[in-house]
Amino acid sequence: MTSPSYSHHFSIHNLPYGIASSPSHPTPQCATRLHNTIIFLADLQSAGLFSSIPSLPPNIFSHSTLNPFASLPRTTQTQVRHVLQCTLQSQPSLPDSSTSDITTVTMHLPVSIPSFTDYSCSLPHNQHAGLAILNNPTPPPAFFHFPIGYSGRASTIIISGTPITRPLGHFYDRTSSPSPSKSVIFAPTRTLDYELELGVIIGRPLPPNQGLKAQDAEEHIFGLVVVNDWSARDIQSLEMIPLGPLNGKNFATSISPWIVTLYALEPFKTQGPEPRVTLPAHLVDPGKASYDISVLVEVEEAGEGEKGGRRTVLGRSNARELFWSVRQMCAHLASTGCDLRTGDVLGTGTVSGEGEGEYGCLLEVTKGGKEVVKLEGGGERVYLEDGDVVTLSAWAGEGVGFGECVGQVRPAREIL
Amino acid sequence: MTSPSYSHHFSIHNLPYGIASSPSHPTPQCATRLHNTIIFLADLQSAGLFSSIPSLPPNIFSHSTLNPFASLPRTTQTQVRHVLQCTLQSQPSLPDSSTSDITTVTMHLPVSIPSFTDYSCSLPHNQHAGLAILNNPTPPPAFFHFPIGYSGRASTIIISGTPITRPLGHFYDRTSSPSPSKSVIFAPTRTLDYELELGVIIGRPLPPNQGLKAQDAEEHIFGLVVVNDWSARDIQSLEMIPLGPLNGKNFATSISPWIVTLYALEPFKTQGPEPRVTLPAHLVDPGKASYDISVLVEVEEAGEGEKGGRRTVLGRSNARELFWSVRQMCAHLASTGCDLRTGDVLGTGTVSGEGEGEYGCLLEVTKGGKEVVKLEGGGERVYLEDGDVVTLSAWAGEGVGFGECVGQVRPAREIL
Repeated sequence: MTSPSYSHHFSIHNLPYGIASSPSHPTPQCATRLHNTIIFLADLQSAGLFSSIPSLPPNIFSHSTLNPFASLPRTTQTQVRHVLQCTLQSQPSLPDSSTSDITTVTMHLPVSIPSFTDYSCSLPHNQHAGLAILNNPTPPPAFFHFPIGYSGRASTIIISGTPITRPLGHFYDRTSSPSPSKSVIFAPTRTLDYELELGVIIGRPLPPNQGLKAQDAEEHIFGLVVVNDWSARDIQSLEMIPLGPLNGKNFATSISPWIVTLYALEPFKTQGPEPRVTLPAHLVDPGKASYDISVLVEVEEAGEGEKGGRRTVLGRSNARELFWSVRQMCAHLASTGCDLRTGDVLGTGTVSGEGEGEYGCLLEVTKGGKEVVKLEGGGERVYLEDGDVVTLSAWAGEGVGFGECVGQVRPAREIL
Repeated sequence: MTSPSYSHHFSIHNLPYGIASSPSHPTPQCATRLHNTIIFLADLQSAGLFSSIPSLPPNIFSHSTLNPFASLPRTTQTQVRHVLQCTLQSQPSLPDSSTSDITTVTMHLPVSIPSFTDYSCSLPHNQHAGLAILNNPTPPPAFFHFPIGYSGRASTIIISGTPITRPLGHFYDRTSSPSPSKSVIFAPTRTLDYELELGVIIGRPLPPNQGLKAQDAEEHIFGLVVVNDWSARDIQSLEMIPLGPLNGKNFATSISPWIVTLYALEPFKTQGPEPRVTLPAHLVDPGKASYDISVLVEVEEAGEGEKGGRRTVLGRSNARELFWSVRQMCAHLASTGCDLRTGDVLGTGTVSGEGEGEYGCLLEVTKGGKEVVKLEGGGERVYLEDGDVVTLSAWAGEGVGFGECVGQVRPAREIL
């Protein structure tokens, strides 16, 4: 079930897309959300609501993923949005049978995801992570030249609400002696972290060997979601030299259920940071290329009474300071000749600000595990404990938000 | 078209699976190969050949990918192989309409590929690459603890024969002065390389959060292919710190068309290297866990007459010395809780031996671009030039080989 408490994120100005089911619509299918009402789009198409859009294929909203709709040209998607806004604005005269209340709805993964590319676009995050791990805030050598990133695991991207099983992995046993740095063990991670990110969902595909200019990339972006790139820091730190993260990240990545379109986000465009070097043409993206999107991470301890049920805000920041725009992220991936496929997810990397309280992951909050953070329920954390619930949310403004991306940590499975 | 010159790779003891089309079978569908004859399996099923296998779903071979068949339990796949071997051995009494000669056949990507994980399992390759790049042959810190690897791009995995367009990317301009190491440009790669690998194709899927023991992994392996993990060394060297390769690899990965099953490879099992550290239970894989598979890379210059048409052998080695088995590769990926999906490709990394002539990529052959290698046609190479044709092949023995994995380098596209 999706929480009704984010009703104000879903005004007539938002109209995001998701895959929902409910008692009246037991088969997962395409839907939009207006406040706390879920509207099943196949019903509207059957009723002829979109008959003025000849380029909209029949039954496009009956699928169990948004990929067929997302792959359409943006002009068609604009027309659908226009019809929806007019219909819902004039009055909610929809037949009851086409809607369900949010409290009765189950959300599903909105797209089938061919690939997951995760960037690291926040300069403060790179500086803080460098300080925490290497005692050096200098960002990686390529940081100002292009958005640095890695390929992640697409198959373990899960919908908000799905529990996270603590992963097992190899890491240095820091508690052993006399030589802690040399003793590698295989055990449940001791340093499970969240990463507060936004993610691009690719819409219209780009064929291979074409390249893409950042300024043309919106044609290929269906919308954005909130992403929790769960990370096992101890597993990462052993495996990353020199091939980057694999098992430290491959166990789970959560995304929020509603894809907020670029149309809805258009009023919140803003100027991002200035480039530090001269960029090649495909990365040039001046003007309002960034989005003013506030992001928030809260952690709740498991348990009843005093401890349980109280959320602690561990970080607030804003996507507008990301050094690279979502358009540049798309252009960089395609620059080699790589294709883009409908449903591809491109993460921004952890969205962090410069100061205390603006950190998007515990690695930054606890300075690499060297400090403790207090929770409202009285608990203390260095990294996540079993039972902890992590809630990410994002909000552009004026009725346009993302709702939440939530996950609870479950104990590790038994070692085989 | 597939070359008939590998006829001896495809005896009755092989019977690999691929996706083929021909004038008589214009729709790509499942096939096997006996010497130079392609046999369309849907025709055999229609003729009742597999009626003794109740667990084989109807029309399983009519699909345009092998995923439905590959996902079946291995017992069912064994029964199909047994029927095929008996039928083809007794005599090739197949109706003509079910076969095509190899010269009339087009091969297609054999599986739909949800993910590509590329390992780096060869100790000599790691030592040589370390020497070439860092002047230090010490393998990465995790090398002896588990197979090190990264997630690659699945969408750009292409079938043997597809040309490779030279990728564009960011790299240090080593030709500029006075400060070559600081000048980053965006241009066609100057250091395009091949990597001679084998790849596991996952068959029966593994659900998330189960884990997998190496000794149980064969249940999930459909077979092996030859892989060319095309690599742009200059792009890699700038981007890899600290997140590993992305654009240096994401433009293309070629695979051979025929998936050679583990049944066919069973006689070629052999003991691999001994572990150097005590392994956790899921990675323990004693006995004959490795495969005696000879691998070969040849490069041919473009052009007519003297220069063109002559292949130069640039490396010969054997997969038996890979430090990690294909079963351990599967077990490591699944160890966090990550799932395995039908069609997932897991590469071994470059298969190199210790000595000169046993190198699986030009980075090793030319010592990181510091030496020149001469080709039979008279040309010299440091890295690949436009027009070069790279042919990888692999051979287990006694009529069981992989055929070839071939790709020609095309010039870069124009910069946008």
